[in-house]
Amino acid sequence: MLLRRYREAVLAEMKAVLAGRRLPLYDMMRYHLGIAGPRGEPAAARAGKMLRPALCLLSCEAVGGQRRQALPAAAAIELIHNFTLIHDDIEDASHSRHGRDTVWRVWGEGQAINAGDGMFALAHLALHRLLEAGLAAPQVLEAARLLDEASLALCEGQNLDLEFEERPDVTCDDYLAMVSGKTAALMGAATAVGALLGGASEDAVGAFKEFGRRLGLAFQIRDDVLGIWGDAAETGKPAGDDIVARKKSFPVVYALEHASEDDRRSLRSIYSAGTVSPEGVAEVLAVLERSGARAASEEAAARHVGEALSRLQGLDLVPARRRELEALALYLVYRRR
Amino acid sequence: MLLRRYREAVLAEMKAVLAGRRLPLYDMMRYHLGIAGPRGEPAAARAGKMLRPALCLLSCEAVGGQRRQALPAAAAIELIHNFTLIHDDIEDASHSRHGRDTVWRVWGEGQAINAGDGMFALAHLALHRLLEAGLAAPQVLEAARLLDEASLALCEGQNLDLEFEERPDVTCDDYLAMVSGKTAALMGAATAVGALLGGASEDAVGAFKEFGRRLGLAFQIRDDVLGIWGDAAETGKPAGDDIVARKKSFPVVYALEHASEDDRRSLRSIYSAGTVSPEGVAEVLAVLERSGARAASEEAAARHVGEALSRLQGLDLVPARRRELEALALYLVYRRR
Repeated sequence: MLLRRYREAVLAEMKAVLAGRRLPLYDMMRYHLGIAGPRGEPAAARAGKMLRPALCLLSCEAVGGQRRQALPAAAAIELIHNFTLIHDDIEDASHSRHGRDTVWRVWGEGQAINAGDGMFALAHLALHRLLEAGLAAPQVLEAARLLDEASLALCEGQNLDLEFEERPDVTCDDYLAMVSGKTAALMGAATAVGALLGGASEDAVGAFKEFGRRLGLAFQIRDDVLGIWGDAAETGKPAGDDIVARKKSFPVVYALEHASEDDRRSLRSIYSAGTVSPEGVAEVLAVLERSGARAASEEAAARHVGEALSRLQGLDLVPARRRELEALALYLVYRRR
Repeated sequence: MLLRRYREAVLAEMKAVLAGRRLPLYDMMRYHLGIAGPRGEPAAARAGKMLRPALCLLSCEAVGGQRRQALPAAAAIELIHNFTLIHDDIEDASHSRHGRDTVWRVWGEGQAINAGDGMFALAHLALHRLLEAGLAAPQVLEAARLLDEASLALCEGQNLDLEFEERPDVTCDDYLAMVSGKTAALMGAATAVGALLGGASEDAVGAFKEFGRRLGLAFQIRDDVLGIWGDAAETGKPAGDDIVARKKSFPVVYALEHASEDDRRSLRSIYSAGTVSPEGVAEVLAVLERSGARAASEEAAARHVGEALSRLQGLDLVPARRRELEALALYLVYRRR
């Protein structure tokens, strides 16, 4: 489907950025990206959805640009996303990702922190390849600025997310502030940079940024719904997994704010204990059911995707690409995995 | 002295980059930089030597540029240096820096990893202020590229340094490869970027880069000498501290390669144990003495600083600034703290 169209090109660009780099540092990066095993041996690529670079390239083509003009930026965006995953896995003490040990589990925390830092630096160097693709320095610099602002917003979101773990009283507004940084900022930068490098006007770049940002909010809320009610056969994660991990995801935060007083007390009590028992998971699911959290989450995701789509109205886009952007937006918010 | 001349301007620029940023994330950054206490309360600035930004600004002025042209880059360089310190402190499990708890000791490892990431992103945003200082986009982009290459080299050096902890057989060449990344690359970028933004020719920028890189090698070797034989009253660290920490510093690596076979065996055995006793420290000092490691280290530092100074020969520089660059180079390699 649509996400596959750009996959090979982005992978090839990332491999080109890593080409000839021989230190163990780069083995760690290739391993994390799924293009090598733990000893540097080549592996069949297995590297997530590659949603963000696809959004970047599709946005570039939608405004009439050529894919190759934005390809180095698409690779940089995927590298930024993956640098944050390497660090998130340490911060969340996650043992596995895509069914393999996380980088810190293979090489230790120190090397994994450093490998993430290196990938962030490499993402910036990847951007300089835009000059070779024929783009002018002011455009390249503006693309870098958009990505650096998104990277800082990512850290702001992660700062809040780590804080929320310790707080019993997170609200829907708190949640949205966190997700605006942690998920939406980079998706907004991906669509904005794609449009920018495709030659869009400043206004159109702004519209694409808000399109991607709203899409990111909807994407994350959908992710939260799947983390609780998703079909394990489709998502690859046991149902209720996010409750066991006591994640303050959108449905839970909604219930913490809107459930009856008894239910709120019950939810806070279950979430403040060290582990959540199967009975605890059942009780949380019952509270979410009674408070209407699932419907409210789906409604919120639909609202944000509607806002996203409205930003594309009135823009002069390549019709086939506009339809694909719209289809991708709807897929992201109604997906089952 | 010379390092103080630029200190206030660089601190003010870093504060400007952080101004108005209110999340706890930024309290962590201000705390690490020594401009705030752990709860965000203002503190008297206490933020290291600020050697790298001083080298950048002095290089800019030496080629005839104005300080303000390079100030945003100088702040970016100091932020990059400090982001790596925040992460190094986690990777080395260091509890204190400049007499205060390290960031991870105050906020935990997860938040500290994230605060370092944020500071790296912020360093890039600081660079964009060069446009406001009147520099053209191609120059700003070239400055960014030099700093991104140095940042990646830093990670390469740290990758090797962490590996060396596990290896008994590190050579002087291994050591120089590690220090070329970990210390010398950013100093070379600092002088190169200063010259670039001051308007130097491509050749002069290259000469300044090698000047700073060689200076970085000499600086680190001198640091290693002080870490073993330094006067505790001047360095603030107990003599022999680096031996207790089993650091593979230049004198130790020299002895591992050049001492008698008995002495090499003894050194490897002491360095492979979990902790080094006071008797072990005395034995290491005796081995270093017998192998001539101290003289060899001082000779190596002097050689690199000589190489550094030779790069400035034949360049058309502002005479007063040239003398200061030379004085700074000699200070760095003969300093006692």
